[in-house]
Amino acid sequence: MKLYDAPRAANPRRVRIFLAEKDVVIDTEPVDIMSKQHLEEPFARLNPLRRLPVLVLDDGTVITESIAICRYFEEVHPDPPLFGRDPKEKALVEMWQRRVEFGLLFPSQFAFRHTHPAMRELEVPQIPEWGEANKPKIMSFLGFLDREMSADGYVVGDAFSIADITALVAIDSLKLSKIRIPEDLTRLKSWYDRVSSRPCVVL
Amino acid sequence: MKLYDAPRAANPRRVRIFLAEKDVVIDTEPVDIMSKQHLEEPFARLNPLRRLPVLVLDDGTVITESIAICRYFEEVHPDPPLFGRDPKEKALVEMWQRRVEFGLLFPSQFAFRHTHPAMRELEVPQIPEWGEANKPKIMSFLGFLDREMSADGYVVGDAFSIADITALVAIDSLKLSKIRIPEDLTRLKSWYDRVSSRPCVVL
Repeated sequence: MKLYDAPRAANPRRVRIFLAEKDVVIDTEPVDIMSKQHLEEPFARLNPLRRLPVLVLDDGTVITESIAICRYFEEVHPDPPLFGRDPKEKALVEMWQRRVEFGLLFPSQFAFRHTHPAMRELEVPQIPEWGEANKPKIMSFLGFLDREMSADGYVVGDAFSIADITALVAIDSLKLSKIRIPEDLTRLKSWYDRVSSRPCVVL
Repeated sequence: MKLYDAPRAANPRRVRIFLAEKDVVIDTEPVDIMSKQHLEEPFARLNPLRRLPVLVLDDGTVITESIAICRYFEEVHPDPPLFGRDPKEKALVEMWQRRVEFGLLFPSQFAFRHTHPAMRELEVPQIPEWGEANKPKIMSFLGFLDREMSADGYVVGDAFSIADITALVAIDSLKLSKIRIPEDLTRLKSWYDRVSSRPCVVL
């Protein structure tokens, strides 16, 4: 089994944190995005969509998409559970994982990729107006997340989950667009400080 | 338990097909998107993100996001399994479900919402250049899906799954942008005819 990883990208970081929380160590091969190694053979043959991370199982099965890779490890290494513990919690974790992707992670990627000069060759066509349109949506979602969060819990109740991992990685990715959590969102800031200092997150 | 539904929208249709495949019948309340009922109280209190569908459990728990609602029913009504049967298949179903969302369903929604005059008030700012930029990506993904598909199977192997539901609903939603499956994508067309004539899909 081998994980193809990109050390600086947001999605592969989700998988690294997930594996660290489960104390799973696997063979990893870095792919250099900056030199466009992911756009060329042999990597492009593994994942024709040319995105990272990619997990290759011992029987040769190729699994792409961070959440699908995490789901695989949730099944084969169930403890600690990071996708919820019972039907209701599993649904709420799925709900928040997706809300955070749609409200924060994808808008953050759109904002960066469609406005930053370094992305002009990779994001074609680059549409700065679309990048900018995502920024107020991000600010609005940060406020929503703060309002929905308890004072000392996690994104879903009292258990750390994949929804926290996606939220943390998304918020860190906002630095590329110079967006920080506003000072008055005190519950979100307190959650961020707590989660980002976990041993498995400080990688 | 009650499901808030929108009869003509793509995401609620995913849940309706999923429930029909599992032979689950639940209390349903339609919400009229055209008259913007989903943007106002009392619905907006249920889901502050103002999107459909929404499932309310008997204990009052609110579950939003189509896939989270489907995940809940997969847990409480496991047969037939629609998210995969073992760790590897579960990962592959998750992978394809997401690939189809990112490559087809979301681009289809962007293409429609950012170019159609009827969406000008709902999608603010409407950016036609972004809508148009999604169309070649959709065509490219349809070709990818055709190449990856077997002659007589489903999106993942030999079992119908949530990945087929998302792909079917996404392809039907392309009609809004006047995009059809190209004639030369014969495996995809054959899959589409087979899947769209299932009794649970013809709703």
